[in-house]
Amino acid sequence: MPALQFSIQQVDSASAARAGTIVTDHGTIQTPIFMPVGTVGSVKAVTQQQLNADVKAQIILGNTYHLYLRPGIEILNKAGGLHQFMGWHKPILTDSGGYQVFSLGSQRKIKEEGVTFQSHIDGSRHLFTPENVMDIERNIGADIIMAFDECPPYPSEYQYAKNSMELTHRWLDRCIARLKETPDLYGYTQNLFPIVQGGTYKDLRTASAQYIADKNAAGNAIGGLSVGEPEAMMYDFTALCCEFLPVEKPRYLMGVGTPWNILESIALGVDMFDCVMPTRNGRNGMLFTSKGVINIKNKKWATDFSVIDDGFISNISNYYTKAYLRHLFAADEILALQIASLHNLSFYLWLVGEARNQILNGNFYAWKQEMVPILKQRL
Amino acid sequence: MPALQFSIQQVDSASAARAGTIVTDHGTIQTPIFMPVGTVGSVKAVTQQQLNADVKAQIILGNTYHLYLRPGIEILNKAGGLHQFMGWHKPILTDSGGYQVFSLGSQRKIKEEGVTFQSHIDGSRHLFTPENVMDIERNIGADIIMAFDECPPYPSEYQYAKNSMELTHRWLDRCIARLKETPDLYGYTQNLFPIVQGGTYKDLRTASAQYIADKNAAGNAIGGLSVGEPEAMMYDFTALCCEFLPVEKPRYLMGVGTPWNILESIALGVDMFDCVMPTRNGRNGMLFTSKGVINIKNKKWATDFSVIDDGFISNISNYYTKAYLRHLFAADEILALQIASLHNLSFYLWLVGEARNQILNGNFYAWKQEMVPILKQRL
Ligand SMILES: [Zn+2]
Ligand SMILES: [Zn+2]
Repeated sequence: MPALQFSIQQVDSASAARAGTIVTDHGTIQTPIFMPVGTVGSVKAVTQQQLNADVKAQIILGNTYHLYLRPGIEILNKAGGLHQFMGWHKPILTDSGGYQVFSLGSQRKIKEEGVTFQSHIDGSRHLFTPENVMDIERNIGADIIMAFDECPPYPSEYQYAKNSMELTHRWLDRCIARLKETPDLYGYTQNLFPIVQGGTYKDLRTASAQYIADKNAAGNAIGGLSVGEPEAMMYDFTALCCEFLPVEKPRYLMGVGTPWNILESIALGVDMFDCVMPTRNGRNGMLFTSKGVINIKNKKWATDFSVIDDGFISNISNYYTKAYLRHLFAADEILALQIASLHNLSFYLWLVGEARNQILNGNFYAWKQEMVPILKQRL
Repeated sequence: MPALQFSIQQVDSASAARAGTIVTDHGTIQTPIFMPVGTVGSVKAVTQQQLNADVKAQIILGNTYHLYLRPGIEILNKAGGLHQFMGWHKPILTDSGGYQVFSLGSQRKIKEEGVTFQSHIDGSRHLFTPENVMDIERNIGADIIMAFDECPPYPSEYQYAKNSMELTHRWLDRCIARLKETPDLYGYTQNLFPIVQGGTYKDLRTASAQYIADKNAAGNAIGGLSVGEPEAMMYDFTALCCEFLPVEKPRYLMGVGTPWNILESIALGVDMFDCVMPTRNGRNGMLFTSKGVINIKNKKWATDFSVIDDGFISNISNYYTKAYLRHLFAADEILALQIASLHNLSFYLWLVGEARNQILNGNFYAWKQEMVPILKQRL
């Protein structure tokens, strides 16, 4: 029985956006929500204290592939799971490792049984199956665990996408069976989210969304988008999936995206997001702000003593100036990576929180229409 | 007239240690004190919020050489000085750039006028003189600014050390003259600290300490130690300098050192310390703790789920485990550098604060004797 409970406080009248609440054994998540990516048990360049107090993260994501290789399942189990190991006591979601394994390209091989791959660290050989991935995710101990799926590249031939989707569906049934025969670990529930696949084919996406919806899972995810397809296509397929995924369960659009991608997808009925952009692009000097996108390495900011972003309340974004942050990047200081990551994540969390407020106030669609062009502009 | 005021609350009965208070235009410093090094306007891997709340730093150090090259004096002046530029509103001390310039080796040339050197960044040629270094330090705007001195290497021939000391004394007089004819910047006082040199020759050190003491500066520094000489020799020359430097002025031992170096030097009458060890060694996985020295990269810590250090109150050291920090180093995560730096600096600040408490309680010497062997041991 899933511990995860989803309730909806408000549905937007002008779009499919909704403001909801997910209750897990590690506390409550207010949706729509963005989940910072904590790849290997750390959101890069951000302390857990900062994640709480500055970023105001409500849930973070861990990568099963990375955690399985380092520190490894034995240490995570001895620690009492990832929450204990890293000192993060709010909800955690783990992906299934599928996406990372498929990204290894020639170093992996897909069979009915599962996927064999070589570690990017030491070249050692491993096998991921739906069964052992469920065991691994149980041991990591996230509150939400993702089904083991195949994520086909874009573009994929129809037949490849169809075979891949059918394999993903068979793997899902094996994931569900495995979870039924194994207990929750550490005294709280690991809730499975299945994943819609089907490439960029409407009939496949429809069939997949219906197959997934029938499982009556605690929540559902849309995978295989934001993998190189045009933005308009991503929105079309997100809308299609949302149409068939149950209204009363949270919907998670995996790996998305920019601030405007997130607002547009909220309007389509998505509740949960994750992406490495705020941290990875932040480390490269790309700042997402309430006024548009900034390349802070640009010389034009060298004497701009205005704060990074005064468009929302933040200990970091309202404190450090553009000139100072630009200097830190020029001087190759670690603090540059910290401030940029903290700002971007704080901004993403503010943005989804503000989207929620706008939904609750009945003004989401107009606000979204106004914000998207502002967020997209290059400053 | 110096804004800096030093008062002594307690002198230890069993040693030359004293508990004092330095009042600057940016607030009060309780001594003995350790100053984290903020090389280029950032204490590496630590935010200003963390420096305040976690490390509890009371004063930090900036490097004139680095700040002069990047972001440069023009930007610092436009920002209203380093305090404003970096958002650090407690006291700052700047070195004179001499130490960095002399470390450049063949790329620099010493003359009576000053030192010509090439930037380590772009090879551009520059000249530092006592006069322009005072102007640069005024523009950086620290509360305490160091005289421009020559720091001879260890070992140095007697005649080299003597000539170098005499040059340092002539440069000191030029520093003082320059400060007299230029105003304080940004509405607060830049207090000059002269520096005792003289290598490892007793007559030279005595002469230099007397020369410096005669200047009646707001505070005095001991330079040219901790440059490779044996520890016992460093203590001997520190004691000798302290004998001739006025009791009623703060004494700063530059570039020192390990936790036990600091306790031993406090016992000799030193009030102020700086060193890159807590941050630099921390980034290499070397932790100084209340129970001894830890190489956190060692495999033995992989399943040690005890906290980094429970010997003092700390948000960081009492929160993260050795196993987690070891994992972060193994996985090459930026968070490893942050936690190690935060821990080491928090420990250093705790240590000098505890030294102060022990002086005030009349128990410093016995406590120091007990602590030094503990701090030195490898765990
Ligand atoms: Zn992404
Ligand atoms: Zn040092």
